[in-house]
Amino acid sequence: MSRSNGRELLPRELLSGSSFSAVELSDDNSRVILLEQRELPSEERYVGFSDADAVARAITDMVVRGAPAIGITAAYGLVLAAKGCTGNFPEEMKRASRVLAASRPTAVNLFWAIERMNRVALDVASLAPTSRVERLAEEARAIHREDVAACRRMGELGAQRVPDGATLLTHCNAGALATGGYGTALGVVRAAHEQGKRVRVLADETRPYWQGSRLTAWELHRDGIPVEVICDNAAASFFARGEIDVAVVGADRIARNGDVANKIGTYGVACLARAHERAMFVAAPWSTVDLDTASGADIPIEERSRGEISEAGGRALVAPDIGVRNPAFDVTPARLVTAIFTERGVVDPVDAAGLEALRPRAGGSARG
Amino acid sequence: MSRSNGRELLPRELLSGSSFSAVELSDDNSRVILLEQRELPSEERYVGFSDADAVARAITDMVVRGAPAIGITAAYGLVLAAKGCTGNFPEEMKRASRVLAASRPTAVNLFWAIERMNRVALDVASLAPTSRVERLAEEARAIHREDVAACRRMGELGAQRVPDGATLLTHCNAGALATGGYGTALGVVRAAHEQGKRVRVLADETRPYWQGSRLTAWELHRDGIPVEVICDNAAASFFARGEIDVAVVGADRIARNGDVANKIGTYGVACLARAHERAMFVAAPWSTVDLDTASGADIPIEERSRGEISEAGGRALVAPDIGVRNPAFDVTPARLVTAIFTERGVVDPVDAAGLEALRPRAGGSARG
Repeated sequence: MSRSNGRELLPRELLSGSSFSAVELSDDNSRVILLEQRELPSEERYVGFSDADAVARAITDMVVRGAPAIGITAAYGLVLAAKGCTGNFPEEMKRASRVLAASRPTAVNLFWAIERMNRVALDVASLAPTSRVERLAEEARAIHREDVAACRRMGELGAQRVPDGATLLTHCNAGALATGGYGTALGVVRAAHEQGKRVRVLADETRPYWQGSRLTAWELHRDGIPVEVICDNAAASFFARGEIDVAVVGADRIARNGDVANKIGTYGVACLARAHERAMFVAAPWSTVDLDTASGADIPIEERSRGEISEAGGRALVAPDIGVRNPAFDVTPARLVTAIFTERGVVDPVDAAGLEALRPRAGGSARG
Repeated sequence: MSRSNGRELLPRELLSGSSFSAVELSDDNSRVILLEQRELPSEERYVGFSDADAVARAITDMVVRGAPAIGITAAYGLVLAAKGCTGNFPEEMKRASRVLAASRPTAVNLFWAIERMNRVALDVASLAPTSRVERLAEEARAIHREDVAACRRMGELGAQRVPDGATLLTHCNAGALATGGYGTALGVVRAAHEQGKRVRVLADETRPYWQGSRLTAWELHRDGIPVEVICDNAAASFFARGEIDVAVVGADRIARNGDVANKIGTYGVACLARAHERAMFVAAPWSTVDLDTASGADIPIEERSRGEISEAGGRALVAPDIGVRNPAFDVTPARLVTAIFTERGVVDPVDAAGLEALRPRAGGSARG
């Protein structure tokens, strides 16, 4: 794994369209460049990866995270696999796809991006190696560009449902850092802000990985959007005080019936929104919708390591012989979701029929 | 402030009745000995304090915490004030009472214990200094002993409502470490365990101070009661999976109408218990009931420092120019509480009439 010394590794034109980017492919298609999110907010450092296995490890280790961002990262990882291919092209692409697909289990965008890249790999298998790499790089960059465009579109749609002066509660990071750029849930916030609405955000810190404290607060503050960090367990109290008007989150996978898998704690936010009669919005690109999965019960939930809970900053919190439970995601049933914003339109009410209505038809976009 | 080197400072007969104790008064009434809870679970260290001001600082800084425990600690602190008194006894007791009462605002047990000690101080003002100290030390030890007895009694009452085989969710630490010994919420767990019921506990880690990870898990594991730690935001998911049968918590103050102020996040647990049709129990000594406060809206809620949220174990989590909100307590409305267990009986349903029915009559106990 090659390591950059800093930002200069980033190509000048970021597909993210922002001043920072969770993931880019170097101009010469030789490296995937990731913002080392584990070091935020203390340091903004970019790291280069030169083969698909290293990219898969970076996804597992959460150098990059967020459903759309890991999809894009995997697509770029497959460009590296093609570029490094010295033997049987279809075999090596299959092997790299398996490794990348095994990096994390819950977000469906990962599998969607790998499948889309593999359709192209099949098409280009007979071409010269440099042409194969170019075509795959084009496709991966298209996935990236389309994701940013999707975020902007769902942001516009979602912002229409955000009142001027609203305080939005968000959980985890569904922002520019979790996507190709702009963000899903935070795309809604950004769009409302760009429309001139006065919005402010309460960001749940999001244990155990602190995506709210470290990432959401960082990127909103950088864009000049008012944000304050609260502990996850304080959200209920702010709902009770009437300080939260709307909850908005991203998604890792949306089942056919509208159930939403997202970062652990999302379901709790949905319960609180319902108890306090506030809207619970989900924003996600269509690539997050998994029509092959009937309901949330069928979505695999990743369990992560004990260490995320048993210590913090090197300080022991749980004695060594005491157990922890660390599910990384939960499922919010469709009935608790007010609306889902996608680039294909708004699903409201959230149910199988609403999702089916937005499904791309044969001959339409490759998405879905 | 004198500092002990270790456990040997503790008198042999602990009023807590346990192998450890949050607070004790040394046999010669010269020192308050506190278990340094900020260092748990890594180290079990006891620290001695020789004047009331140092005791007040220890309460503010959370060397000791938990509503009943800080009440007992303040009572012992007033023994030190009497012992150290070289001038006007009533004036010095008043000054020490003011300092101790200002240490933390939300838990009412603190004010209750100080008032009870001041009634004795008034009685003994004309006695010789050594007699004054002895009488005050007797009273403070009585407060401590009665608290342990109250915990055992409410534990027995509460345990009758815990089914065999139950998994209990608890939030924060309402255990031996938060009381004179045995615990309130964890007293219910201990009593069920002692009655031979197979019970297990899911302990919310309880951000930002980790009382669940560091204290609740530590003390239950030490007593051989099965316990696992979860992130606060995972509780909803475990409710949804049907893994939680009962929620049980302590209280910092219970208003006349039955509203319960307790550690931030308690209200969220109550919302989840209601949404999943599970019992939400509160266990607290009668000294936690504040009949002078009409409802939860009248209970002052302490806001604690930014640093508890902006860093962990020395690691920066929130960039320096981004705001945090850190309320340390929230209020659970009476309608969400299934029952309150006190040493005077069970309040069920939880309302003003139920609390009034248990109120001590004139000529009865000094409590309340």
